[in-house]
Amino acid sequence: MANGGPEIEQLIQLLARLPGLGPRSARRAVLQLIKKKEQLMIPLSAALDRAVEAVRTCEVCGNVDTISPCSICSDPRRGDSGMLIVVEDVADLWALERAGVGAVRYHVLGGVLSPLDGIGPDDISINELIARAHEFREIVLAVNATVEGQTTAHYIMDRLGETEIKVSRLAHGVPVGGELDYLDEGTLSQALKARTAI
Amino acid sequence: MANGGPEIEQLIQLLARLPGLGPRSARRAVLQLIKKKEQLMIPLSAALDRAVEAVRTCEVCGNVDTISPCSICSDPRRGDSGMLIVVEDVADLWALERAGVGAVRYHVLGGVLSPLDGIGPDDISINELIARAHEFREIVLAVNATVEGQTTAHYIMDRLGETEIKVSRLAHGVPVGGELDYLDEGTLSQALKARTAI
Ligand SMILES: [Zn+2]
Ligand SMILES: [Zn+2]
Repeated sequence: MANGGPEIEQLIQLLARLPGLGPRSARRAVLQLIKKKEQLMIPLSAALDRAVEAVRTCEVCGNVDTISPCSICSDPRRGDSGMLIVVEDVADLWALERAGVGAVRYHVLGGVLSPLDGIGPDDISINELIARAHEFREIVLAVNATVEGQTTAHYIMDRLGETEIKVSRLAHGVPVGGELDYLDEGTLSQALKARTAI
Repeated sequence: MANGGPEIEQLIQLLARLPGLGPRSARRAVLQLIKKKEQLMIPLSAALDRAVEAVRTCEVCGNVDTISPCSICSDPRRGDSGMLIVVEDVADLWALERAGVGAVRYHVLGGVLSPLDGIGPDDISINELIARAHEFREIVLAVNATVEGQTTAHYIMDRLGETEIKVSRLAHGVPVGGELDYLDEGTLSQALKARTAI
């Protein structure tokens, strides 16, 4: 074994499967781990052991946390706004939390409807969403602005049917700091339609 | 904790310290690990545990392996060529092995001389190199083509002094598949000087 034995080779292969790392950067990462054994490799090994033990999926919203219901679902202050934000993935939930959107709750679909890929309503967490929707005053469908995302949003609105609950979606527009001539026409025309007085 | 508890947060922070990963890709990596707990997170955790236990630095050459002397140093066929390739880092050794340079041996310096950074001959593995140099017929100084790399090469040649051992360096030239107009002038002029008949 040129690259230092099966233990090292296996570590490289597993790290190479992480998003953002390929075989080359996985090799560099493993060398860094070996070089910084005390400060990095052993702590990372311990952190992974703890995470394997502790991490679970929230039975209410689909978030990942070390408790279920998760810390968001079990935070009583999160109920006051009456707002439920529906997202495709946990990564979107985390992004909204980092943006500081306020004391809201979430529902993680775990994907979008995609008939071509054989992904139907029972394959993602839509029934669970419909079952808890009545607890909220407003549901924000924060799905991606893709064909599948919009199909999923329409399907959810159909399933919600006639209801008192307000249903909304994220505004389209110019990203903060974004340059107009890099934006597609759809975004630009939506941004113009939704223009606000200054 | 918005991002799912201290265990997850710590995992993100440790992964973000790996080369090639930043905070954003570390979050995506952790979500991938959680999503693929059985296929990825648990195997990675186990592989890290094993690597922490098994990986050591070769007492002869500075390579990393699970045995010391490493599998290269303890392979008798590696002695036949009489060639020792001196590299700065283990990553360079691995790159040469992937390139299939043949049945050679290596010496990993663990850095280069850099007076400005306070790195002198005793801070890298030069004394160890001089001590084993007489075992070889040829020493290839495969250090990087940087000022520090070349300084280190000159220092090693001085230390080797008058000797029967042939000392060489890697050829400069046009990288295979490289486009000429992307190359710096130094490389181009070296490539011209070292031109070969066809
Ligand atoms: Zn939850
Ligand atoms: Zn060795």
